[in-house]
Amino acid sequence: MDSRFYTFIAGDTGQWKIVAVHVVTGQPLETAPRLDIQNADLREPPTGLRWLLRGVTSNQRYVTRPEQSSLVASQAGLGRPEATCAALIPITKTAAWWLLAQDERRDIFEARSSHIATGLRYLPAVARRLHHSRDLGEPFDFLTWFEYAPSDAPAFDELVTSLRATEEWNYVEREVDIRLIRDDNRVA
Amino acid sequence: MDSRFYTFIAGDTGQWKIVAVHVVTGQPLETAPRLDIQNADLREPPTGLRWLLRGVTSNQRYVTRPEQSSLVASQAGLGRPEATCAALIPITKTAAWWLLAQDERRDIFEARSSHIATGLRYLPAVARRLHHSRDLGEPFDFLTWFEYAPSDAPAFDELVTSLRATEEWNYVEREVDIRLIRDDNRVA
Repeated sequence: MDSRFYTFIAGDTGQWKIVAVHVVTGQPLETAPRLDIQNADLREPPTGLRWLLRGVTSNQRYVTRPEQSSLVASQAGLGRPEATCAALIPITKTAAWWLLAQDERRDIFEARSSHIATGLRYLPAVARRLHHSRDLGEPFDFLTWFEYAPSDAPAFDELVTSLRATEEWNYVEREVDIRLIRDDNRVA
Repeated sequence: MDSRFYTFIAGDTGQWKIVAVHVVTGQPLETAPRLDIQNADLREPPTGLRWLLRGVTSNQRYVTRPEQSSLVASQAGLGRPEATCAALIPITKTAAWWLLAQDERRDIFEARSSHIATGLRYLPAVARRLHHSRDLGEPFDFLTWFEYAPSDAPAFDELVTSLRATEEWNYVEREVDIRLIRDDNRVA
């Protein structure tokens, strides 16, 4: 069985070169030359490690069937040759968010913040994979990985700016925005 | 911060004596004399170990605010002196369940299977704690721990029988029902 676990390793090696680290809210995260992504639940710190973040892909938590169908019809996969730009955005939500009932979180997420509808407007240009980290005891609740072509970088900036202006983002207490470019040399 | 992780350890020691193991659906689980419960993410196998199951308490996934208020108003905590009977029920749901959208799972869970409404009828007699295991890479998706007084054992049997007759249970591919009694001697 394929692993649903992913480990993001910031250090001296990896296919992705870190070009910017912007602390949006809360505690910073150290910068590093490179990011390596392994499809495994890695716990042993590799050499040259600055930090390591773990996450797991999982079932949808808020998406309805019609929304899911729209997403599947529009979205692109990761690894497109032209998608040489990427972003890793780790986020932690507040305790108040996690104490809300499911219907309250859904209302804020979509009815009042249009998270899914906004994301749909940027498909298929922006490909993404969401990793859940909260229940692994990690410092962040979510790690979202995005890939896009250089020509879509302004659209990606518009997307994250839109989301950060929503009611949902009042519940974000930590967010770091890491931008990367693919570089197959794999070393700093 | 208190850990949300719990490890259930079947072996020679522990406060709970295993009195019955009933394989409801799917692969069996070995029986053992005792069950120890540790409020930690234990990974090292202790001596005398038969099996070890890990889970984490988390946010509600299906409950609405009115349902949540009813639950909080009625439910009892774990550790009541009179609640000397317990059950540990590990469950795995099918791949088809996890591919459903959130609204489809909620419809089956409550609108068509009355999972919450049925559970409410047995409060405060039956206290419970739900642990999520699927995203930890564990063999079961959920571990539910129940505590009740001996005089409420028939009511507890009625509760699990009702749930197993629902549409939701068509999506259960593995279930083991482990019954226990408290015994402070802690050894077999």
